[in-house]
Amino acid sequence: MALSKAPYKGTRDFFPAQMRLRNYMFSKMAEVSELFAYEPYDGPILEEIDLYRAKSGDELINDQVYSFTDRGDRQVAIRPEMTPTVARMAAQVHREIAKPIRWYAIPNLMRYEKPQRGRLREFWQYNADIFGAGAFGEIEILQLAVNIMKNFGATHEQFEVLINDRKLVNLVFNDLLKLDADVQKKLYKLIDNKKKMAADKFEAEAAVLIPDPAKAMVFKAYSSLATFAEVKTFVAKYAKESTESLPILVMFDFIEKLGLNNYIKFDPSIVRGLDYYTGIVFEIFDKHPENLRAIAGGGAYANLLQIFNEPALEGVGIGMGEVTLKDFLTTHNLLPDFTKTEVDILIAYTVPEGEKEAFLLAEQMRSRGIKTEVLFGEAKMKKVFTYSEKKDFKFIAVFGEEEMKNRQVQIKDLTTKETQNVELHDMEKISRIFKGN
Amino acid sequence: MALSKAPYKGTRDFFPAQMRLRNYMFSKMAEVSELFAYEPYDGPILEEIDLYRAKSGDELINDQVYSFTDRGDRQVAIRPEMTPTVARMAAQVHREIAKPIRWYAIPNLMRYEKPQRGRLREFWQYNADIFGAGAFGEIEILQLAVNIMKNFGATHEQFEVLINDRKLVNLVFNDLLKLDADVQKKLYKLIDNKKKMAADKFEAEAAVLIPDPAKAMVFKAYSSLATFAEVKTFVAKYAKESTESLPILVMFDFIEKLGLNNYIKFDPSIVRGLDYYTGIVFEIFDKHPENLRAIAGGGAYANLLQIFNEPALEGVGIGMGEVTLKDFLTTHNLLPDFTKTEVDILIAYTVPEGEKEAFLLAEQMRSRGIKTEVLFGEAKMKKVFTYSEKKDFKFIAVFGEEEMKNRQVQIKDLTTKETQNVELHDMEKISRIFKGN
Repeated sequence: MALSKAPYKGTRDFFPAQMRLRNYMFSKMAEVSELFAYEPYDGPILEEIDLYRAKSGDELINDQVYSFTDRGDRQVAIRPEMTPTVARMAAQVHREIAKPIRWYAIPNLMRYEKPQRGRLREFWQYNADIFGAGAFGEIEILQLAVNIMKNFGATHEQFEVLINDRKLVNLVFNDLLKLDADVQKKLYKLIDNKKKMAADKFEAEAAVLIPDPAKAMVFKAYSSLATFAEVKTFVAKYAKESTESLPILVMFDFIEKLGLNNYIKFDPSIVRGLDYYTGIVFEIFDKHPENLRAIAGGGAYANLLQIFNEPALEGVGIGMGEVTLKDFLTTHNLLPDFTKTEVDILIAYTVPEGEKEAFLLAEQMRSRGIKTEVLFGEAKMKKVFTYSEKKDFKFIAVFGEEEMKNRQVQIKDLTTKETQNVELHDMEKISRIFKGN
Repeated sequence: MALSKAPYKGTRDFFPAQMRLRNYMFSKMAEVSELFAYEPYDGPILEEIDLYRAKSGDELINDQVYSFTDRGDRQVAIRPEMTPTVARMAAQVHREIAKPIRWYAIPNLMRYEKPQRGRLREFWQYNADIFGAGAFGEIEILQLAVNIMKNFGATHEQFEVLINDRKLVNLVFNDLLKLDADVQKKLYKLIDNKKKMAADKFEAEAAVLIPDPAKAMVFKAYSSLATFAEVKTFVAKYAKESTESLPILVMFDFIEKLGLNNYIKFDPSIVRGLDYYTGIVFEIFDKHPENLRAIAGGGAYANLLQIFNEPALEGVGIGMGEVTLKDFLTTHNLLPDFTKTEVDILIAYTVPEGEKEAFLLAEQMRSRGIKTEVLFGEAKMKKVFTYSEKKDFKFIAVFGEEEMKNRQVQIKDLTTKETQNVELHDMEKISRIFKGN
């Protein structure tokens, strides 16, 4: 039986057009990160499984992680996310290096998922983290996220950053409503579905979960919060003593100061399931109804280094997946055309003596930074033209009988359709033509 | 018990200095590949294990491959090399796209090895392959390999490309010596050790493996071949009828024509163990005795697509490992210093009102392509200077009391030590200063 030509389920082959697109996305992400003085890092594709267990518990491992036992009887996993790795790396060096630490990476990750729109088993994820910067780190990560999106040409009409604060969530659900974890989770889910439900159905379901009418009022008020001003009023009303200490209120001022309020909105349904978040949490969404999954998500965490017996170090992170990002950019027509290779010149020869000259000219041009392809084998001009249509060549250079006799090369500009013969000894002139100057 | 902070055995954490170095190597490889009109591609980190079994047999899989059974009962492996993946991908599209196909990738791979100098369990490997180009593909891959090395600043005094041809090897071992596979393998090993052995010991061992004295003479002659001219004489003497058809002879002429003979040498010990090579085979070595492992290797293969029931398509490929390449570049002092982050400006404020201005200026500068860090929190000038020494800043911009009053920013050039105050409304002037024009 012949082998399958298809990639493993839920993974992709990146042919050149797709790979150029991927490189484009990654280079834009790296570019903005460097403008914010974030430094690149990477870790291994395999980690010992205890790292994920310590951070996320057994559930994630059992459901979603590619894990196995190596030949040395170590339990290992293909990384399903980058945060445990970056925490492990920060734990190694944070005592010695200047803070804040600003790092970014674009690793490949794997999760055992059912493949569907916006979700695959193998995917790449942009990660940026800042350690040791307190609330400034929160605002900077939001700024960075908005700038990455803007750098792709995206506008506030196309995407939105929805934020919340785990301290506010804790205030509401622990201090005010005093609910246990199980009911909390059900209420998170209820808020998440609020937009799709009729108001009376929402209230009826909430009433079942919160029998106390006074508390149900608080929940209703919280789940209706839509603007920064409303959050401020809510906090002032329900939690007078701690008004000033809620970082999200400071954050709101900062967001407005920096003119980011077009992009960033408060949303009470953003809580993010993972237990380790301790400050702001956020997700970025496409406003187009076709793409429902978050493009990015992140938040602040204070205690991740403690699993390594290291003192607490505040961190704020963002993860942005390339699958949902690509869907977003495609939907909004923000991607250049990557189907054709850009090559500056095609060098061909119509007589056998031209072969050596073609290869030597190619070598000369490449050493001057010009992308050059040699059309292998003696070819009739018809074949040269047919071939030249298959890629995005700017020029054709040909060695024919006449040119060989005169030590020249014929150059055809495929844009202007003009043809000229140039002396072979004048490599500088030839390269100036190809560079268009 | 605290979790380990170390990466999994045989893998590495890439902190920013190491990651910048890795990025530097990869971008140079990509740059040269694009100059040769090679297009980027990638495949999944996991493949079904049958793909490797079909190409390399069970031995490699049992000894070196990270394999496991997924939840759907599929036997999968973390890719130990890229060639099977590129063959699988070429098999999908080769009927439809223009040939030659020129592809390159820099994937992460894993092999279950004993970690040692030049060899790790997780590593990245540059791969380039050309399909459907015949002998031209062989010369182009060699040219590409030499150019990558040259692009790092390496000279022919520092590295060499050793080549052989599997057709010549077959001629000698199958047609002339008529040896079975087992003895052949022992002789390959013997030639490989020749340089480290006394001449009489070498001959004695050869005599044991080849009892026939006439045949032993042929073997001795073959194993002594050192120059292109000697190979030509050898072929003319021992294989008269097929002299013209041995591609390596044509290759020699091409290598000389292109002036690559400084870099490329014939070496009878280069045979490469893998069965699938059918034409030239080559390896690149550091000439420095400290680095013994090959930096790169490759060759021509004709039949890889047949495992997919596709018609034969000639391919030529190269794989270059970043571990040995880095050792080479380090030994010969060819690497820039990557220890410090380059950031254009550090923006600081010594009064609280400066905070908003600092963030806004940063936003403005980044949108003009200037790498900018904000020093978070009101800081005394002493702290600003101390912090500025930790990274490679070119300028410091400060908002102090005076500047806030006059709507200015103070800019200090850390190279010239000159200081000037600039009006805040003139963002163009400010950015020109930072860009140095």
